[in-house]
Amino acid sequence: MAEIQHINVVKIGGNVIDNPEVLSRFLDDFVKLPSPKILVHGGGKEATRLSERLDIPTQMINGRRVTNRETLDVVTMVYAGLINKRIVAALQSRGCNVIGVTGADGNIMPAHRRSPEPIDYGFVGDIVPDEANAGFLKALLTEGIVPVFCAIMHDTKGNLLNCNADSVASAVAIASAKIAEVDMHYCFEKDGVLKDVDDPDSLIAEITPDYYAELKEQGIINKGMIPKIDNAFNSVRNGVKRVVIKNSDNLLGTRATVITI
Amino acid sequence: MAEIQHINVVKIGGNVIDNPEVLSRFLDDFVKLPSPKILVHGGGKEATRLSERLDIPTQMINGRRVTNRETLDVVTMVYAGLINKRIVAALQSRGCNVIGVTGADGNIMPAHRRSPEPIDYGFVGDIVPDEANAGFLKALLTEGIVPVFCAIMHDTKGNLLNCNADSVASAVAIASAKIAEVDMHYCFEKDGVLKDVDDPDSLIAEITPDYYAELKEQGIINKGMIPKIDNAFNSVRNGVKRVVIKNSDNLLGTRATVITI
Repeated sequence: MAEIQHINVVKIGGNVIDNPEVLSRFLDDFVKLPSPKILVHGGGKEATRLSERLDIPTQMINGRRVTNRETLDVVTMVYAGLINKRIVAALQSRGCNVIGVTGADGNIMPAHRRSPEPIDYGFVGDIVPDEANAGFLKALLTEGIVPVFCAIMHDTKGNLLNCNADSVASAVAIASAKIAEVDMHYCFEKDGVLKDVDDPDSLIAEITPDYYAELKEQGIINKGMIPKIDNAFNSVRNGVKRVVIKNSDNLLGTRATVITI
Repeated sequence: MAEIQHINVVKIGGNVIDNPEVLSRFLDDFVKLPSPKILVHGGGKEATRLSERLDIPTQMINGRRVTNRETLDVVTMVYAGLINKRIVAALQSRGCNVIGVTGADGNIMPAHRRSPEPIDYGFVGDIVPDEANAGFLKALLTEGIVPVFCAIMHDTKGNLLNCNADSVASAVAIASAKIAEVDMHYCFEKDGVLKDVDDPDSLIAEITPDYYAELKEQGIINKGMIPKIDNAFNSVRNGVKRVVIKNSDNLLGTRATVITI
């Protein structure tokens, strides 16, 4: 088996998953992206919709879903079941041999339940990238299999945990960097980080730590973008060669915001 | 890597899954069963319960769930999401390194949508055991990974399909028989096939094809048991060394009905 030289890690979020046509176009491109590669997907609105139909109240604090036992069941069903297996079947039909995983599968990514102090988020987990099972990841990639991660992890004590998909993607990229050179692609509905969200021409080509501080101070980078960029910086600081933020319609193109240290 | 000599394939059904204590005891025993091994699980009442809460009518014909698009989403969420990942997390917490799969994952088991004539079951699939991806199965087992199958398969054209878990178990056992000698254990709430369902002492030790015909003629083997035993015979006729039907509380014991040709 040839040594793995390079790995592409791609993250898609709810705005891609919630739109079947956008998702389909993205998946068409994803199969063309050079292998070995890994896909990480977020959740989208389906979990909230299912919670509503089941009369389970959705509680968000600082943009994170509070996950009690009932909500954990909902996100496990939607993220690990419905969305993950739909993507797996869709990619198989395109000739891309994928396997859908939670962090519990092959113990590929253990997580730690977040302390209930100061805020009790319930079954919400945080990941230590160094604990990811890079050996199993490498075994899958060597077999020519493309792992598709949802953001449900486990605590190794029998509990599933709801995690942030951007953090999962960052941890997957960092674990992959132990195997080979890694390019990380955060894909969403915009062309990258924009100076003016209403002006697609205001794309920022590159963000360095100093420039990032400046953009935050000026209020140009907004709340929702901050954890995404923090995760991007975390990835490059931990061995990922290149992190770009780009449009899901432009996975194969170069138009993007590059995160550089 | 040592050559694989023997594989244990175990099937559990709804009556085990629906009872957390019975399931927990079974999983305690499953980790003690010699590896390499494979678990196949059915559905249980959770899918019907979720359908009820979502006001989706459940339609059964000849004991098979009619699976329209909405019902397919429900069984995908419950079988591939909730039940599969709960079992995966529970086995990981017991130190057993498992990976949960549908037939779409690694294209491990393609299926064929059943003809809508004479009865349209919707997204229901049938399996051709010879089409199972024994190579990927072997790769997982060689890595020391225990595959945990739910009964959601795919048609390789992007559609997930709801399949019969006993048939999936039989196909998994037949595919495994291409790799090594296989023992197949069908586990449920009784000690095996009973002459009198109310008398645990009436266990039938062995069923041959002739005796099976006789038992059916006498009405001793009832409707629900027939597809199970048909699948068992199908397995032994296709290379599986030994098939037993036993109590889920007795996975490691010898008390069972042996199916022999």
